[in-house]
Amino acid sequence: MAISRQQLKDYQQRAKAYFDRAGIVLTPEEAENIEIADFGLNEFEETGLALVTYINTPRCCAKELVLFPTQTCPEHFHPPIEELNYEGKEETFRCRWGEVYLYVSGEAAPNPIATPPENRKQTYTVWHEIILRPGEQYTIMPETWHWFQGGPEGAVVSEFSTRSVDEADLFTDPDIQRMPEILDD
Amino acid sequence: MAISRQQLKDYQQRAKAYFDRAGIVLTPEEAENIEIADFGLNEFEETGLALVTYINTPRCCAKELVLFPTQTCPEHFHPPIEELNYEGKEETFRCRWGEVYLYVSGEAAPNPIATPPENRKQTYTVWHEIILRPGEQYTIMPETWHWFQGGPEGAVVSEFSTRSVDEADLFTDPDIQRMPEILDD
Repeated sequence: MAISRQQLKDYQQRAKAYFDRAGIVLTPEEAENIEIADFGLNEFEETGLALVTYINTPRCCAKELVLFPTQTCPEHFHPPIEELNYEGKEETFRCRWGEVYLYVSGEAAPNPIATPPENRKQTYTVWHEIILRPGEQYTIMPETWHWFQGGPEGAVVSEFSTRSVDEADLFTDPDIQRMPEILDD
Repeated sequence: MAISRQQLKDYQQRAKAYFDRAGIVLTPEEAENIEIADFGLNEFEETGLALVTYINTPRCCAKELVLFPTQTCPEHFHPPIEELNYEGKEETFRCRWGEVYLYVSGEAAPNPIATPPENRKQTYTVWHEIILRPGEQYTIMPETWHWFQGGPEGAVVSEFSTRSVDEADLFTDPDIQRMPEILDD
Protein backbone atom coordinates (compact mmCIF):
# COMPACT_ATOMS: atom_id res chain seq x y z
CA MET A 1 0.00 0.00 0.00
CA ALA A 2 1.22 3.50 -0.75
CA ILE A 3 -0.08 7.01 -1.32
CA SER A 4 -1.13 8.17 -4.83
CA ARG A 5 0.14 11.41 -6.33
CA GLN A 6 -3.37 12.85 -6.36
CA GLN A 7 -3.88 11.99 -2.71
CA LEU A 8 -0.49 13.51 -1.88
CA LYS A 9 -1.48 16.75 -3.60
CA ASP A 10 -4.80 16.87 -1.76
CA TYR A 11 -3.12 16.43 1.61
CA GLN A 12 -0.53 19.07 0.72
CA GLN A 13 -3.28 21.54 -0.12
CA ARG A 14 -5.09 20.83 3.13
CA ALA A 15 -1.84 21.29 5.06
CA LYS A 16 -1.15 24.55 3.24
CA ALA A 17 -4.54 25.87 4.38
CA TYR A 18 -3.49 25.24 8.01
CA PHE A 19 -0.26 27.18 7.50
CA ASP A 20 -2.31 30.03 6.01
CA ARG A 21 -4.65 30.03 9.01
CA ALA A 22 -1.65 30.16 11.34
CA GLY A 23 -0.22 33.13 9.42
CA ILE A 24 2.85 31.13 8.40
CA VAL A 25 4.20 32.10 5.01
CA LEU A 26 5.83 29.46 2.78
CA THR A 27 7.63 30.01 -0.49
CA PRO A 28 5.85 28.48 -3.53
CA GLU A 29 8.58 25.78 -3.63
CA GLU A 30 8.03 24.91 0.03
CA ALA A 31 4.26 24.76 -0.46
CA GLU A 32 4.64 22.40 -3.42
CA ASN A 33 6.92 20.11 -1.48
CA ILE A 34 5.12 19.82 1.85
CA GLU A 35 6.11 16.41 3.16
CA ILE A 36 3.23 14.04 3.79
CA ALA A 37 4.52 11.48 6.29
CA ASP A 38 2.19 8.50 6.55
CA PHE A 39 4.76 6.21 8.21
CA GLY A 40 4.04 3.54 5.61
CA LEU A 41 0.64 2.76 7.13
CA ASN A 42 -1.57 4.31 4.45
CA GLU A 43 -3.87 5.62 7.16
CA PHE A 44 -2.69 9.22 6.87
CA GLU A 45 -5.72 10.94 8.36
CA GLU A 46 -5.38 8.79 11.49
CA THR A 47 -1.61 8.31 11.68
CA GLY A 48 0.58 10.90 10.01
CA LEU A 49 1.62 14.51 9.83
CA ALA A 50 2.48 17.12 7.21
CA LEU A 51 5.70 19.05 7.53
CA VAL A 52 8.09 21.56 6.04
CA THR A 53 11.75 21.26 6.95
CA TYR A 54 13.20 24.76 6.93
CA ILE A 55 16.75 23.74 7.72
CA ASN A 56 18.52 20.53 8.68
CA THR A 57 22.31 20.69 8.96
CA PRO A 58 24.59 18.41 10.97
CA ARG A 59 24.08 20.77 13.94
CA CYS A 60 20.63 22.24 13.79
CA CYS A 61 17.11 21.68 12.44
CA ALA A 62 13.81 23.56 12.26
CA LYS A 63 10.50 22.28 10.94
CA GLU A 64 6.89 23.40 10.79
CA LEU A 65 4.34 20.64 11.41
CA VAL A 66 0.64 20.34 10.66
CA LEU A 67 -1.66 17.87 12.38
CA PHE A 68 -5.17 17.46 11.06
CA PRO A 69 -7.95 17.12 13.68
CA THR A 70 -7.19 14.10 15.91
CA GLN A 71 -4.37 13.05 13.57
CA THR A 72 -1.59 11.28 15.49
CA CYS A 73 2.17 11.25 15.13
CA PRO A 74 2.87 7.75 16.45
CA GLU A 75 5.01 6.84 19.43
CA HIS A 76 8.72 7.06 18.70
CA PHE A 77 12.16 7.75 20.06
CA HIS A 78 15.29 9.44 18.68
CA PRO A 79 18.24 7.16 19.36
CA PRO A 80 21.91 8.11 19.58
CA ILE A 81 23.73 7.40 16.30
CA GLU A 82 27.23 6.17 16.91
CA GLU A 83 28.49 6.52 13.30
CA LEU A 84 27.60 10.21 13.42
CA ASN A 85 28.89 10.67 16.95
CA TYR A 86 25.37 11.91 17.66
CA GLU A 87 23.79 11.70 21.08
CA GLY A 88 20.27 11.77 19.67
CA LYS A 89 17.79 14.47 18.75
CA GLU A 90 16.67 17.09 21.25
CA GLU A 91 13.51 18.87 20.16
CA THR A 92 11.24 21.67 21.30
CA PHE A 93 7.63 21.71 20.13
CA ARG A 94 5.96 25.11 20.13
CA CYS A 95 2.26 25.29 19.35
CA ARG A 96 1.49 28.10 16.89
CA TRP A 97 -2.18 27.43 16.16
CA GLY A 98 -4.85 25.03 17.40
CA GLU A 99 -4.08 22.59 20.16
CA VAL A 100 -1.77 19.60 20.48
CA TYR A 101 -1.68 16.81 23.05
CA LEU A 102 1.80 15.50 23.67
CA TYR A 103 2.58 12.30 25.57
CA VAL A 104 5.98 11.39 26.96
CA SER A 105 7.29 8.86 29.43
CA GLY A 106 6.49 9.75 33.05
CA GLU A 107 3.47 9.69 35.34
CA ALA A 108 0.45 8.68 33.28
CA ALA A 109 -2.54 11.01 32.97
CA PRO A 110 -5.54 9.35 34.66
CA ASN A 111 -7.89 10.61 31.92
CA PRO A 112 -5.86 11.49 28.83
CA ILE A 113 -7.53 13.76 26.30
CA ALA A 114 -6.17 11.97 23.23
CA THR A 115 -7.25 8.55 22.05
CA PRO A 116 -4.78 6.76 19.75
CA PRO A 117 -6.04 5.25 16.49
CA GLU A 118 -8.25 2.32 17.57
CA ASN A 119 -6.52 -0.34 15.45
CA ARG A 120 -3.09 0.58 16.85
CA LYS A 121 -3.83 1.51 20.44
CA GLN A 122 -1.69 -1.31 21.87
CA THR A 123 1.39 0.43 20.39
CA TYR A 124 0.93 3.51 22.61
CA THR A 125 2.72 3.02 25.91
CA VAL A 126 3.64 6.47 27.33
CA TRP A 127 0.92 8.60 28.87
CA HIS A 128 2.43 11.59 30.64
CA GLU A 129 0.30 14.37 29.14
CA ILE A 130 1.31 17.86 28.09
CA ILE A 131 -1.32 20.10 26.52
CA LEU A 132 0.05 22.80 24.23
CA ARG A 133 -1.97 25.79 23.13
CA PRO A 134 -0.66 28.66 20.95
CA GLY A 135 2.50 30.12 22.46
CA GLU A 136 3.11 27.09 24.69
CA GLN A 137 6.04 24.76 24.20
CA TYR A 138 7.77 21.70 25.58
CA THR A 139 11.30 20.33 25.14
CA ILE A 140 11.95 16.61 24.70
CA MET A 141 15.41 15.35 25.48
CA PRO A 142 16.94 12.45 23.51
CA GLU A 143 15.87 8.88 24.24
CA THR A 144 12.43 9.92 25.46
CA TRP A 145 9.54 7.98 24.01
CA HIS A 146 6.82 10.36 22.80
CA TRP A 147 3.79 10.77 20.55
CA PHE A 148 1.34 13.57 19.89
CA GLN A 149 -2.09 14.25 18.49
CA GLY A 150 -3.83 17.29 17.00
CA GLY A 151 -6.84 18.71 18.84
CA PRO A 152 -10.39 18.97 17.43
CA GLU A 153 -9.39 21.72 14.98
CA GLY A 154 -5.91 20.37 14.23
CA ALA A 155 -2.66 22.12 15.06
CA VAL A 156 0.34 23.91 13.63
CA VAL A 157 3.52 23.29 15.60
CA SER A 158 7.07 24.60 15.20
CA GLU A 159 9.86 22.18 15.97
CA PHE A 160 13.30 23.51 16.95
CA SER A 161 15.87 20.78 17.29
CA THR A 162 19.29 19.38 16.78
CA ARG A 163 19.90 17.48 13.54
CA SER A 164 17.05 15.29 12.29
CA VAL A 165 17.89 11.81 11.10
CA ASP A 166 14.30 10.66 10.59
CA GLU A 167 15.28 7.30 9.11
CA ALA A 168 16.99 6.38 12.40
CA ASP A 169 13.87 6.94 14.51
CA LEU A 170 12.53 3.96 16.43
CA PHE A 171 8.79 3.34 16.58
CA THR A 172 6.80 1.25 19.03
CA ASP A 173 4.53 0.06 16.22
CA PRO A 174 6.38 -2.65 14.26
CA ASP A 175 4.29 -1.89 11.12
CA ILE A 176 5.85 1.57 10.78
CA GLN A 177 8.43 2.70 8.27
CA ARG A 178 9.23 6.41 8.39
CA MET A 179 9.79 7.07 4.68
CA PRO A 180 6.68 6.86 2.43
CA GLU A 181 6.44 5.14 -0.92
CA ILE A 182 4.75 7.09 -3.69
CA LEU A 183 2.89 5.28 -6.46
CA ASP A 184 2.84 6.76 -9.93
CA ASP A 185 -0.73 6.67 -11.15
CA MET B 1 23.85 55.94 29.58
CA ALA B 2 21.26 53.22 29.93
CA ILE B 3 17.62 52.52 29.20
CA SER B 4 14.89 53.49 31.70
CA ARG B 5 12.21 51.04 32.84
CA GLN B 6 9.49 53.12 31.22
CA GLN B 7 11.35 53.22 27.92
CA LEU B 8 11.92 49.47 28.14
CA LYS B 9 8.19 48.91 28.62
CA ASP B 10 7.34 51.13 25.66
CA TYR B 11 9.72 49.28 23.38
CA GLN B 12 8.37 45.95 24.59
CA GLN B 13 4.83 47.04 23.76
CA ARG B 14 5.85 48.19 20.30
CA ALA B 15 7.64 44.89 19.70
CA LYS B 16 4.59 42.96 20.89
CA ALA B 17 2.47 44.78 18.30
CA TYR B 18 4.82 43.47 15.58
CA PHE B 19 4.46 39.90 16.86
CA ASP B 20 0.69 40.36 16.78
CA ARG B 21 0.80 41.61 13.20
CA ALA B 22 2.91 38.59 12.22
CA GLY B 23 0.38 36.24 13.86
CA ILE B 24 2.95 35.05 16.39
CA VAL B 25 1.45 34.17 19.75
CA LEU B 26 3.46 34.74 22.92
CA THR B 27 2.56 33.69 26.43
CA PRO B 28 1.88 36.62 28.81
CA GLU B 29 5.22 35.87 30.52
CA GLU B 30 7.09 35.99 27.21
CA ALA B 31 5.37 39.25 26.26
CA GLU B 32 6.34 40.85 29.57
CA ASN B 33 9.93 39.80 29.19
CA ILE B 34 10.65 40.72 25.58
CA GLU B 35 14.36 41.44 25.51
CA ILE B 36 15.29 44.93 24.36
CA ALA B 37 18.88 44.71 23.16
CA ASP B 38 20.39 48.15 22.68
CA PHE B 39 24.00 46.95 22.67
CA GLY B 40 24.86 49.54 25.29
CA LEU B 41 24.61 52.41 22.79
CA ASN B 42 21.33 53.92 24.04
CA GLU B 43 20.31 54.52 20.43
CA PHE B 44 17.79 51.69 20.37
CA GLU B 45 15.63 52.91 17.49
CA GLU B 46 18.71 53.10 15.30
CA THR B 47 20.84 50.25 16.66
CA GLY B 48 19.05 47.44 18.44
CA LEU B 49 16.51 44.69 18.22
CA ALA B 50 13.76 43.16 20.33
CA LEU B 51 13.70 39.43 20.87
CA VAL B 52 12.13 36.45 22.58
CA THR B 53 14.31 33.42 23.23
CA TYR B 54 12.09 30.37 23.03
CA ILE B 55 14.78 27.88 23.91
CA ASN B 56 18.54 27.93 24.42
CA THR B 57 20.16 24.71 25.58
CA PRO B 58 23.79 23.63 25.15
CA ARG B 59 22.79 22.13 21.78
CA CYS B 60 20.02 24.18 20.27
CA CYS B 61 18.42 27.63 20.25
CA ALA B 62 15.39 29.36 18.75
CA LYS B 63 14.48 33.04 18.95
CA GLU B 64 11.93 35.40 17.45
CA LEU B 65 13.29 38.83 16.52
CA VAL B 66 11.65 42.17 15.84
CA LEU B 67 13.30 45.00 13.95
CA PHE B 68 11.60 48.37 13.89
CA PRO B 69 11.66 50.23 10.55
CA THR B 70 15.30 50.76 9.47
CA GLN B 71 16.50 49.53 12.88
CA THR B 72 19.88 47.81 12.60
CA CYS B 73 21.42 44.85 14.37
CA PRO B 74 25.07 45.88 14.21
CA GLU B 75 27.89 43.98 12.55
CA HIS B 76 29.05 41.00 14.58
CA PHE B 77 30.50 37.54 14.52
CA HIS B 78 29.98 34.37 16.59
CA PRO B 79 33.38 33.04 17.60
CA PRO B 80 34.29 29.50 18.59
CA ILE B 81 34.42 29.12 22.39
CA GLU B 82 37.18 26.80 23.46
CA GLU B 83 36.06 26.37 27.11
CA LEU B 84 32.70 25.08 25.85
CA ASN B 85 34.26 23.00 23.08
CA TYR B 86 31.98 25.04 20.83
CA GLU B 87 32.77 25.71 17.20
CA GLY B 88 30.63 28.85 17.11
CA LYS B 89 27.00 29.61 16.40
CA GLU B 90 25.33 28.57 13.16
CA GLU B 91 22.09 30.42 12.55
CA THR B 92 19.25 30.51 10.05
CA PHE B 93 17.19 33.68 9.71
CA ARG B 94 13.70 33.20 8.33
CA CYS B 95 11.64 36.29 7.60
CA ARG B 96 8.07 35.95 8.90
CA TRP B 97 6.74 39.45 8.30
CA GLY B 98 8.00 42.65 6.68
CA GLU B 99 11.37 42.74 5.02
CA VAL B 100 14.93 42.40 6.27
CA TYR B 101 18.23 43.27 4.59
CA LEU B 102 21.05 41.00 5.64
CA TYR B 103 24.73 41.68 4.94
CA VAL B 104 27.49 39.10 5.17
CA SER B 105 31.07 38.86 4.01
CA GLY B 106 31.37 38.25 0.25
CA GLU B 107 30.97 40.23 -2.94
CA ALA B 108 29.70 43.70 -2.04
CA ALA B 109 26.37 44.94 -3.40
CA PRO B 110 27.03 47.91 -5.71
CA ASN B 111 23.95 49.74 -4.42
CA PRO B 112 22.96 48.29 -1.05
CA ILE B 113 19.41 48.97 0.08
CA ALA B 114 20.27 49.49 3.75
CA THR B 115 22.14 52.48 5.14
CA PRO B 116 23.79 51.94 8.54
CA PRO B 117 23.23 54.48 11.30
CA GLU B 118 25.04 57.61 10.12
CA ASN B 119 27.16 58.10 13.25
CA ARG B 120 28.45 54.50 13.11
CA LYS B 121 28.75 53.82 9.40
CA GLN B 122 32.51 53.30 9.56
CA THR B 123 31.89 50.17 11.69
CA TYR B 124 30.04 48.40 8.85
CA THR B 125 32.48 46.48 6.67
CA VAL B 126 30.60 43.57 5.02
CA TRP B 127 28.27 44.30 2.14
CA HIS B 128 27.18 41.07 0.47
CA GLU B 129 23.42 41.65 0.39
CA ILE B 130 20.60 39.16 0.98
CA ILE B 131 17.03 40.45 0.90
CA LEU B 132 14.56 38.38 2.89
CA ARG B 133 10.82 38.66 2.46
CA PRO B 134 8.23 36.52 4.30
CA GLY B 135 9.00 32.81 3.83
CA GLU B 136 12.58 33.48 2.73
CA GLN B 137 15.56 32.45 4.79
CA TYR B 138 19.35 32.39 4.88
CA THR B 139 21.83 30.35 6.91
CA ILE B 140 24.97 31.92 8.37
CA MET B 141 27.81 29.60 9.26
CA PRO B 142 30.10 30.36 12.25
CA GLU B 143 32.82 32.98 11.95
CA THR B 144 30.94 34.96 9.31
CA TRP B 145 30.69 38.70 9.94
CA HIS B 146 27.09 39.87 9.46
CA TRP B 147 24.59 42.59 10.23
CA PHE B 148 20.97 43.24 9.29
CA GLN B 149 18.39 45.97 9.08
CA GLY B 150 14.59 46.06 9.09
CA GLY B 151 12.80 47.34 5.98
CA PRO B 152 10.53 50.42 5.83
CA GLU B 153 7.77 48.65 7.82
CA GLY B 154 10.09 46.71 10.13
CA ALA B 155 10.43 42.94 10.24
CA VAL B 156 9.73 39.84 12.29
CA VAL B 157 12.38 37.16 11.87
CA SER B 158 12.71 33.65 13.31
CA GLU B 159 16.19 32.52 14.20
CA PHE B 160 16.98 28.79 14.35
CA SER B 161 20.47 28.10 15.62
CA THR B 162 22.90 26.18 17.68
CA ARG B 163 23.48 27.41 21.24
CA SER B 164 23.54 31.19 21.75
CA VAL B 165 26.29 32.63 23.89
CA ASP B 166 25.47 36.28 23.23
CA GLU B 167 28.07 37.59 25.65
CA ALA B 168 30.82 36.00 23.55
CA ASP B 169 29.80 37.78 20.33
CA LEU B 170 32.36 40.05 18.75
CA PHE B 171 31.30 43.41 17.31
CA THR B 172 33.06 45.61 14.79
CA ASP B 173 31.97 48.73 16.69
CA PRO B 174 34.23 49.09 19.75
CA ASP B 175 31.52 51.06 21.60
CA ILE B 176 29.25 48.03 21.77
CA GLN B 177 28.48 45.85 24.76
CA ARG B 178 25.87 43.17 24.18
CA MET B 179 24.19 43.15 27.59
CA PRO B 180 22.15 46.25 28.44
CA GLU B 181 22.17 48.10 31.73
CA ILE B 182 18.79 49.03 33.17
CA LEU B 183 18.40 52.14 35.31
CA ASP B 184 15.88 52.14 38.12
CA ASP B 185 13.91 55.33 37.82
